[in-house]
Amino acid sequence: MSSLSGRGQRLVQSPPAAEYLREHFARSPAPHDPALRPDGYIPLCVAENKLMSDLLCPQLGRPRQVPARVLGYDAMIGSWQFREALAGFLPRFLGRAVRPEHLAVLAGAGSVLELLFHVIADPGDAVLVPTPSYAGFWPDLETRDELCIVPVHTSASTGFRLTPELLDSALKSAGRRVRALLFTSPDNPLGRVYSRPELEAVLSWAEHAGIHLVMDEIYALSVFGPQAFVSAASLRPALGERVHVVWAFSKDFAASGLRAGVLVSENAEVLAAVDGLAYWACCSGHTQLVLGEMLSDQAWVEGYVSTMRARLGSAQHAVTRALTASGIPFLPSEAGFFLLVDLRRFLDSPSWDAEARLWRRLVEGANVNLTPGSACRISEPGFMRLCFAAVPEHTATVAVDRLARVLGG
Amino acid sequence: MSSLSGRGQRLVQSPPAAEYLREHFARSPAPHDPALRPDGYIPLCVAENKLMSDLLCPQLGRPRQVPARVLGYDAMIGSWQFREALAGFLPRFLGRAVRPEHLAVLAGAGSVLELLFHVIADPGDAVLVPTPSYAGFWPDLETRDELCIVPVHTSASTGFRLTPELLDSALKSAGRRVRALLFTSPDNPLGRVYSRPELEAVLSWAEHAGIHLVMDEIYALSVFGPQAFVSAASLRPALGERVHVVWAFSKDFAASGLRAGVLVSENAEVLAAVDGLAYWACCSGHTQLVLGEMLSDQAWVEGYVSTMRARLGSAQHAVTRALTASGIPFLPSEAGFFLLVDLRRFLDSPSWDAEARLWRRLVEGANVNLTPGSACRISEPGFMRLCFAAVPEHTATVAVDRLARVLGG
Repeated sequence: MSSLSGRGQRLVQSPPAAEYLREHFARSPAPHDPALRPDGYIPLCVAENKLMSDLLCPQLGRPRQVPARVLGYDAMIGSWQFREALAGFLPRFLGRAVRPEHLAVLAGAGSVLELLFHVIADPGDAVLVPTPSYAGFWPDLETRDELCIVPVHTSASTGFRLTPELLDSALKSAGRRVRALLFTSPDNPLGRVYSRPELEAVLSWAEHAGIHLVMDEIYALSVFGPQAFVSAASLRPALGERVHVVWAFSKDFAASGLRAGVLVSENAEVLAAVDGLAYWACCSGHTQLVLGEMLSDQAWVEGYVSTMRARLGSAQHAVTRALTASGIPFLPSEAGFFLLVDLRRFLDSPSWDAEARLWRRLVEGANVNLTPGSACRISEPGFMRLCFAAVPEHTATVAVDRLARVLGG
Repeated sequence: MSSLSGRGQRLVQSPPAAEYLREHFARSPAPHDPALRPDGYIPLCVAENKLMSDLLCPQLGRPRQVPARVLGYDAMIGSWQFREALAGFLPRFLGRAVRPEHLAVLAGAGSVLELLFHVIADPGDAVLVPTPSYAGFWPDLETRDELCIVPVHTSASTGFRLTPELLDSALKSAGRRVRALLFTSPDNPLGRVYSRPELEAVLSWAEHAGIHLVMDEIYALSVFGPQAFVSAASLRPALGERVHVVWAFSKDFAASGLRAGVLVSENAEVLAAVDGLAYWACCSGHTQLVLGEMLSDQAWVEGYVSTMRARLGSAQHAVTRALTASGIPFLPSEAGFFLLVDLRRFLDSPSWDAEARLWRRLVEGANVNLTPGSACRISEPGFMRLCFAAVPEHTATVAVDRLARVLGG
């Protein structure tokens, strides 16, 4: 008899992490270094902003008075002090006041999504996710929560535009009880900032359908284009029972390793149910202290955000210039850490197998890892997500040169 | 239609946290203060060591160089650097060498238990837990993992001694597939240090039964009596496939709020399966850095551990002296943060209802919260766990005076 449970064996046989991520972890020990390892691995497949550590590390490392309460158990959904600091900070992008009692802090946005969907949907229930999409939603919702994501495919020919008709069609054809629509704004992987009318259409549709709308606004501050971010939280006088916002420090504060995610919800029952599970996904009290102090320094936050936007814009500009020079088509972005490259013309056939072969050829030939479009559930093969902020600006252009060499060869 | 899922509604209707914990959170905002609130709440129901913050807070708060890697994703089961630091530290109580690749770090011991049991047992499977027991095992194993704990009751008349016959009987009468025995050493709530022959009997029994033995050794260093701690990990040349050790910083480093728990296992499949779920229960990278640096300062660790033991011993002595003076019987302890008080003679009848009434009378009359024996699944009513390290030494004696007043009234 195996020493594992049935579900344990399934985790080993079919790990929740996709192949491109396992390849990432396998190659990470030998990264690119201009002097020491010029042919080293360049990971452009993980949505991290690696451009901000000079501002952030001193914040984490500076001396501070640590109160004894930080050592002990506190509220499982985050200390009141930290939620107060968040309530002072979040309005800058939510576009509305928020109360500490409407916040829950957990060990990262992944944990927030996992627990939120646990308490609003039962095993087998469906959740609508427009595509192209963040690849991680599938493990977040399907692995432990046992939900079924119904993708709402938009198509390249329309510029990946979501319409109410597409949502209607997905709702009708789901074949299961649909409990929620999960919508990401700014968009991942498109790097698009949605306008107020676009968000209004999504919110109205969800209200009419009578389902939860979970807004993933994790890139709210990471906007470098001219279009200003609008939060879905700002569209109504109140969030109500069925609109929830997910945010985290991982993207806008370039700190995925600190595991600090936030749920904004006015639904007291949802918060109570999440609280019941929060013990198994708690955020470190010390990390809460450090991040709370950081947020409370408004002048520092202002400087940080404007520097971040400038660096993201510069990095995006450098990589798009390199892509253009190399003849690799792409969809420009205005937010987030990434853009989609359009490699359809480099496929040997218009198939998912051909995309997988191309991805493999790029990772082996260029030692550059892109997120394959299949992981983002894009409606047609040949697109890949390129995270330009995951490495220094110069490294991203080295990666594009390598990709071009393999694609041209 | 409720905005919650069925499982979400169950979490709201039957919160995983027991009544005494909900009472604890309700009363915590008005704690005892000798000068400002002499009648304030005294929580002796949560196993925390509050006696060490003068040594620990400066460690957390001192300035340090934070490497950029701390900001980013790292291994979901803990950074290699932190696991190396742990591998250097853990042998001091495990009594054997341990390799970093046999360690997984998660957001607290609760998360370690929850994920470990997920991958070694399926919904409906049984796990044997000797009683008196840590109350939290029930939510840890039953809430998300959907396992069924089969208590192995020991009785007060034998000094709560576990025997192979009791284990045999529980295994036979379980009526379900039994996947594991979960054993706590040093004991919670008895505060007893198990001898090598006692551990050998438990390990041999589990080997013979062919089930996992999960050793909760979370109080390994918190020993203040003359009997030295022995780890079950030291009994065999190798841990093998079915012995796993759980440890954390919460007890021995008085830091339950930092959410850093450790799994020690030589079972590669168990570790791989846990890795597959670890993303939803990650330990903060910054907290890993801080704790890793702390462990690496061996002189500091030596001083910390000897001070901790002296303070625990002193606190236990103060509270047992007060209990004796007040005529409240108790079972002396030699490890952990607690002891059992024997309130059987104060029950108005030998029933669980009477115990609940007595607990309520104490919390309302004395504003002192003890862990009722029912939560520890003790085999007969009337015992309660008293955590003497959860408050300053003087406060614990104030609590005993208040308890004595209510019991005598």
